[in-house]
Order: sequence, then structure tokens, then C-alpha cells
Amino acid sequence: MWDQIVLGLLLIPKLGLVRESTHGKFLISQSNLNEISSSGYKFYNYSQTIDHFNYRPESYDIFQQRYAINDKYWGGAKNNSPIFVYTGDEASLESVIRSAGFLVDNAPHFQALLVVIEHRYYGESNPFGSRKQAYQNTSTLGYFSSTQALADYAQLITELKKNLSANNCPVIAMGGSYGGMLASWFRLKYPHIVIGAFASSAPILYFDDITPENGYLSIVTKDFQETSKSCYRTIRESWFEIDKFGLEINGLSVLSQIFHTCRPLNNTPELKDALASIYSAAAQYDDPTTQPVNLLCSGIDGAFDEATILERVFTGITPWNGKKQCFDIDVYNIDDSASETAIGWYWQTCSEMVMPIGCDSNDTMFQAQPFNIYNYTMDCQKKWGVTPRPHWMTTEFGGHNIKSVLRNFGSNIIFSNGLRDPYSSGGVLCNISDTIVAIYTTQGSHCLDILPATPADPEWLIAQRNEEVKIIERWIAEYKANIIA
Amino acid sequence: MWDQIVLGLLLIPKLGLVRESTHGKFLISQSNLNEISSSGYKFYNYSQTIDHFNYRPESYDIFQQRYAINDKYWGGAKNNSPIFVYTGDEASLESVIRSAGFLVDNAPHFQALLVVIEHRYYGESNPFGSRKQAYQNTSTLGYFSSTQALADYAQLITELKKNLSANNCPVIAMGGSYGGMLASWFRLKYPHIVIGAFASSAPILYFDDITPENGYLSIVTKDFQETSKSCYRTIRESWFEIDKFGLEINGLSVLSQIFHTCRPLNNTPELKDALASIYSAAAQYDDPTTQPVNLLCSGIDGAFDEATILERVFTGITPWNGKKQCFDIDVYNIDDSASETAIGWYWQTCSEMVMPIGCDSNDTMFQAQPFNIYNYTMDCQKKWGVTPRPHWMTTEFGGHNIKSVLRNFGSNIIFSNGLRDPYSSGGVLCNISDTIVAIYTTQGSHCLDILPATPADPEWLIAQRNEEVKIIERWIAEYKANIIA
Repeated sequence: MWDQIVLGLLLIPKLGLVRESTHGKFLISQSNLNEISSSGYKFYNYSQTIDHFNYRPESYDIFQQRYAINDKYWGGAKNNSPIFVYTGDEASLESVIRSAGFLVDNAPHFQALLVVIEHRYYGESNPFGSRKQAYQNTSTLGYFSSTQALADYAQLITELKKNLSANNCPVIAMGGSYGGMLASWFRLKYPHIVIGAFASSAPILYFDDITPENGYLSIVTKDFQETSKSCYRTIRESWFEIDKFGLEINGLSVLSQIFHTCRPLNNTPELKDALASIYSAAAQYDDPTTQPVNLLCSGIDGAFDEATILERVFTGITPWNGKKQCFDIDVYNIDDSASETAIGWYWQTCSEMVMPIGCDSNDTMFQAQPFNIYNYTMDCQKKWGVTPRPHWMTTEFGGHNIKSVLRNFGSNIIFSNGLRDPYSSGGVLCNISDTIVAIYTTQGSHCLDILPATPADPEWLIAQRNEEVKIIERWIAEYKANIIA
Repeated sequence: MWDQIVLGLLLIPKLGLVRESTHGKFLISQSNLNEISSSGYKFYNYSQTIDHFNYRPESYDIFQQRYAINDKYWGGAKNNSPIFVYTGDEASLESVIRSAGFLVDNAPHFQALLVVIEHRYYGESNPFGSRKQAYQNTSTLGYFSSTQALADYAQLITELKKNLSANNCPVIAMGGSYGGMLASWFRLKYPHIVIGAFASSAPILYFDDITPENGYLSIVTKDFQETSKSCYRTIRESWFEIDKFGLEINGLSVLSQIFHTCRPLNNTPELKDALASIYSAAAQYDDPTTQPVNLLCSGIDGAFDEATILERVFTGITPWNGKKQCFDIDVYNIDDSASETAIGWYWQTCSEMVMPIGCDSNDTMFQAQPFNIYNYTMDCQKKWGVTPRPHWMTTEFGGHNIKSVLRNFGSNIIFSNGLRDPYSSGGVLCNISDTIVAIYTTQGSHCLDILPATPADPEWLIAQRNEEVKIIERWIAEYKANIIA
């Protein structure tokens, strides 16, 4: 069902997961990653308060929060040189550092200190001593929330600046995807700590009833349609072909053979979910170098002449099969063997990050399946014993009428998007004011601009990053003019 | 010791307490109060979430939060008529309604709906079923925080607007003293819920090291100095006279006689604390009609010719003795018989509202006694079993360099003050931007402008309120122009 797929989709917002759980060719190159990981970050622990908002005895518990500092390029506190803080998200610190290319790429130009903070309950920043302890039940998991994470960042940055005697150094929050949401919310809630925020591919409007539920899948569809009409039609028809086999006596067995599944299929939805996850991930990370949608459609369109619809689909997804040489549909399930990103984000979507992604009509290449908060809630209660709060994000962070709310409130936020990214449907795509601006590229994919620059980057991506750099330069210049005045 | 006095002082920020615990003539007139209480508020309960920021099983507990609505003057949802919300503070709903005169006085002009929300842990808005249950230990008291209170308001207002089909009605937060802090923080943290905030006498800068610790007592001193130099000198010298008696064998007994104490004194600090509390309250509520500082100094200066310093002081404070016809120094202690305001605020100052009020030099009319966070913490641990977080308010809400932080961030806040109010030392007294403005009167006292208007109000107070009304009119006009556009 879509709710399940939807959860699956939400588990792919970070490249980290795509790297770990799929094996397509649309990964950023390994050599580039190695270079980043050896570029001068040192790791530290901060004794963090588990509960910033209450004063119960257990609210005072402390856990070790990891963060990393790269001071290789820093101009120092005396020069009021800036501090770029990546507001860590649903991945380990190492993984976030690898993705956060924009920071290290631009540090020399800005003479910036780089700080990357690991989000609570990811990586090694687990309360209660260990990941196992932290994840044991809702009593220990219950402190896992975005508001607590933001307060972590506020407290850590405040103390870090004091320790570095860097009180006058301007801090800029940066992040992509959920990290981008955190960056923009951090600027809105803690303007005394960060002078601006660069939020890449942050779907802060994909909550409550702000964005139409089929926003995400409409863009997946558009990406495929634009790449190849015949590919789009093949996929669109494939669901019904699968359904037909599902009704036949040996149909599941035949389907298992057609798709070379690593184990026999138990039902058709698990096949459809896995396929939808591949299409969605391909669209989300449809970057101009590896072009996964094009790769997929080349397979579908280029299959042997007499190939059936499902044989074409199988040919299309073959590059995603990886080392196993078979189609491992279980990779797309969230079970105990799933990545920490997948599991942690599952909790977050089940507590507060309720993004109603569905498909309430027949205008996408997917079968209609409306978002159903009842089923969603049931699933979360069964999996975690937690009841989602579907309206809390908009109550706490807003989103409705964002243009009129922020037009004369707040400043210094870049909302950047790539319009090939399905999550851009929940992003801010219009300038809100002179200083809360939207920068998008029609060809860009999820988080593309905040990822490491590569020699293969197209002109429009370079231009987007240059524009972002110019805006950040302006924030810093204005800040410095202001503290001198 | 000062820490104790300081706690005492902080317990007087609301007129409610002054009304309950002292008996001077500086109360707003009773007839006026009766009029307000019968002016059309209806009381309701809202099922409020106890813990907005966590997802533990107990975070989902619900308590009944009281609020009051007055729709007598409302222009209705169809006209997008405004909603004035008083962000309730450290008193019962009834008490807050009585103080919140600005709302009802201006409702007809604005055709405003009035909403007053009771702060959690005050009045009848006690979690766990009753005040006794709520206050039993830190496990139940631990949800008593300003961030939870703001989230209560966010959730309640959002749902109320939905129920009233009043989504397009602009909401303005209003409050005085701690309620004024809440109003201004609410605008800063929840701009999607309120279009502006009127914060009367909100000492949001009296945290951490932002305001010099002797700010409060310096203004008490100035008020007395300006009223009568000889009165000021008498008080200034009185402490040493008390100390002298304290060193004598029968000194405490003599002091008890001089001051007509209701019970024999145990030590001199309890006498000095009670006197300091009276002077501070007199200065804080030195309104132009009742003029308590003048009343007190008339007693001191007008005592019989041969009166000693302490006899003069006694004559000065006699109007505060009330019905008991003796000086009840225990009124100024916070014990089990203290008002709910006194007890609740004591908890708040011991958890997060750590305002470092002290006297680190000899330039006030009080004896030097620096604020001592160690003693303060010890006292809180002993009284409540809670450890204060002295830096949390500035981490969460800012305050340092407020002018540069908010100069291009945020909008639509009125910070109003009366400079005779000792808390004005921690208030915002300069315009921060075109729309975050400071309005003060040199003769005003604590919360004077948000209290009910009376026929005796001087011109400068009327002018201050008119200016506030004009600014609020502008916010509403701009909001309406914006939603139509």
C-alpha cells in the first residue's frame, strides 16, 4: 500500500541511505568521498542535556553528542571569521560530513570554521549509552524530536563559541533535506545564534494540508515523462500487468521469475512497493552526471523488441540489482537489518514528521492510493507504540500562508531546490522577501547544490552555487558592518 | 540575604500578589475590578497536551487548561476582526482577567475577540488532576516551563481559530511582566500564529549577564531619592541601625517592639528582607494615583520630630500593616500559606527564570549583597529538589545584542515600560527597528499601561496607551492589506 511505500520514500531523502541500500550507478563517486573524509575534520563529544524543555529529574540526564570541527581554513576569532554549522540530520556524522560538500568547498573562500553536529539518536549520539538502549522503547526513544535537536544545536553552538572566544563570529546554519528543514527552522527559532540559513531541498511545506498529497509522485511522474514518454507509459501500464498475474494461480511464481527476485514473492504489493521505491529514488537523485531516470528508461525502452511490459521493467531496474545478481525486494523494507538512517527516520515520521505523501487521483504513473492517516497511525502504533502528531509540525514551525507570515518577519534564508526532485513540491519556490529567497534549477535533483562539487558539474549548477555564495557573503558583510557600527 | 529577598521581589511582579499579600493603599480600586470581572468573559476548558516536545508514553497525557473568551465586542470571523490573546502568567485566570484592562478597554474600538489563557500550573490549569497532585514533586512539576506554556498557547489558539472558522482573523498577543515576556517570545517563536505582540513591562533582558545585577535595586533607590532625599537617607541608614540592635543582647526584642512585629523576630535578616520587599513593591507599583513611594516617604519624613531612624521607618511602613494592626513579616516569606502566584513563581525562578538581581556595590539605598548563583542553586535544590538552568533563557530566547539580532529579524512588537518600575532596567528601552519599538514613560510603574484605564489616569499614560493602540491598528491594517493582496 502507498502508506508503506511512502514511508519507504521518506527513507531515501539522504544520499547516505541510497548509498547503503541500493546499488545503482547514481552514487556520487567514491574517490570524491575519500577526499572529503580526509579533509581535516576532528571529532569531539559534547555533554548534551537530554530534555531541554522540562525539569523532571530525568530531564537532566546527559548524553554524549558527537560533533566535528574543521579549522583548516578558519580566519580565526580575531577576524570575526564565519562559522558554518551543518545541522546534522538522519545519518551518522561521517555520512553527513561526506554529503556536506558545500561547506568544505567554500571554506577557503570564506575562511570559515566548519562544524558538523550529529543529530541525537543517529551515529554515536545515542542517549542512554548505546543505540540499543536508546531504541529499546518509547520511554527512551521519546526524546527523539526535532525541537530537542534544535535546542541541542543552540546549546552546543553557544558553548562552543564561548570556548573559542568567538562570540562575534557570525554563524550560518546549513543543511539538506531534513537537515535543510532544521537549518531554516533554526534561523527562524534561534536568530540570536545564526545570522542566516542555507536550506537545500527542504520540504518544509510538505506537512498537514499545505502541499497536495500527490505532489511528490507527480514530480516522479513528470521526470519520467520528460525523459521518455514510452518509458512512462510502460511503467504506468505495468501495475495492471502485475495485478493480472496476482490473480492467476501461479502468478506470483511467474512474477518472481520475470523479476529474478532473490526469494519468491509473497504478494504483489511487495513487488510494487519495491519498484515504486526505485522509481522514486531515481527521480529524487536524478543528477545530471549519472542520470538514473535516463538509465532506467534506457533499459525499459531498449529491451529486446518482443519484450513484454514486465520484461521491459525488469530490464530497466537491472542496474539496481547490485552484487546479488537478483532483485532483492527486502532492501526496500524497514526491518531490523535496515540502515540506522532508515530506522531512525521511520521513528521520526511516526512521531512528528508526518508528511502526507500519497496519490489521490490517476494523474501520475502510479496507481491511485490516497494518503490515509488512519492506516498510517495504525502502522506507527504497531511498529513503535507511538501515535503520530500530524499537526504538530505546522503548529510549531508554521508553513500555512508562509509568504504572508514571513514577508515582514525573519530574514536571511536561502531555500534552494532542484525541480526534478520530487520533494521540491513541498519546498519554498518563490521569494518571500528580499532576504528570504528561493533559488531553484529546473534540472536539479535532491540536495544537489549542497553536495560536493565535481568537475562534471553543469553550468547551471555552478551558477546556482555561485548565487548562494554571493548571498551568504552579503549576510556576513551586513553582519560585520552592523557590529562595527 | 539578598538571594532570598530577590526571590521575594520576583514574587511581586503581578498586582494579584500585592493585592493578596500586602495591604497598602496602592491597589487598583475594587469597584473597577468588579466591573471588569462582570464584563462578559465566559470560561472554557481545553484538553491540553502535557509535553509538546517529547514522545514518551507520559508525554501524551492530557490536562484541562482553562481559558476565557469575551465575544461581546467581536466583529466576527467574516469581517476578519482581530483576536486579542492575553498570554496568561503567574496567576489564576480570574486574576489575570482583572489585570488585563487594556484588552477590554480597547475591544470595542477594535471589535476584538478577547481570549485569556490560564498558564499551566496556575489557577485551575493543573496537570495530574489537582494542584496538590501537580505540585507533589519534580516528576509532576517538571512540565512547568515557559516553552511548554508557549506551545500550549500555540496549540490552543490554532484549534480555537479553526473552531471559530476564524483562520483569517489576525491574532495579537498581549501580556504584562512575565506575561509580557511570554507575549514577545510568542511573537518571536510563533509568528505564524500571532501577527504582533504588546509586551508591557517585560524584563526579557534580566537574564544571564545582559543587565547589571543591581539594575533593579538601583531604580528602587532612584524612585525613593527622587521622591524624598531625606527619606532615601533614612532608609539607607536604617540597615546599620538594625545591625546595631542585632549585636545587642536584647536587640531583637527591642526591634520587635519598634516595628510592632506580629511575632518576635528570630534574626535581623528577616526584618531587613521584609522591609526591602515593601520598598521594592512600592517602587514597582508606584502608580501616579496611589503613589506608594510618596506615601511611605511621607510617613518616614513626617514622623514626630524626635523619632529615631527606625521609628521613622516604622511610621513609613505602617500603612502596609493591614488589618492585623501589626507588622506581619511572614507575609514576605514563601511558605505553604503563600499565594499560588508566590509558590508557582518560586518554582519558575528555581528552574529557568533565573534573574540575577542583586546589589554588588554600595550605590543603592540597600546594603551590598551580590547575587550568588551558588546560594541561589542551593536554596532551589533544598526547596524544590531542582537545579536551576541559569543560561537556558538566553539560549532559548536570546537577549544578548538584541538590537543587532532583531534589527533585521522579526517585527511587530511593542515593548512598553514605565521607568519608575525597577524591572524596566531589564526591559527593551530603545527602538530595535521600525516595527519592534520601545515606548516608555518616565513616570510609569510596572504594567501600568496594560492595567484597566481609570478616570484618574494622567495625560502621559493616556498618550502612551493611544500610541500603543495606533501601532496595533497599523499591524492590523497591514495584515488586512496583505491578505487581500
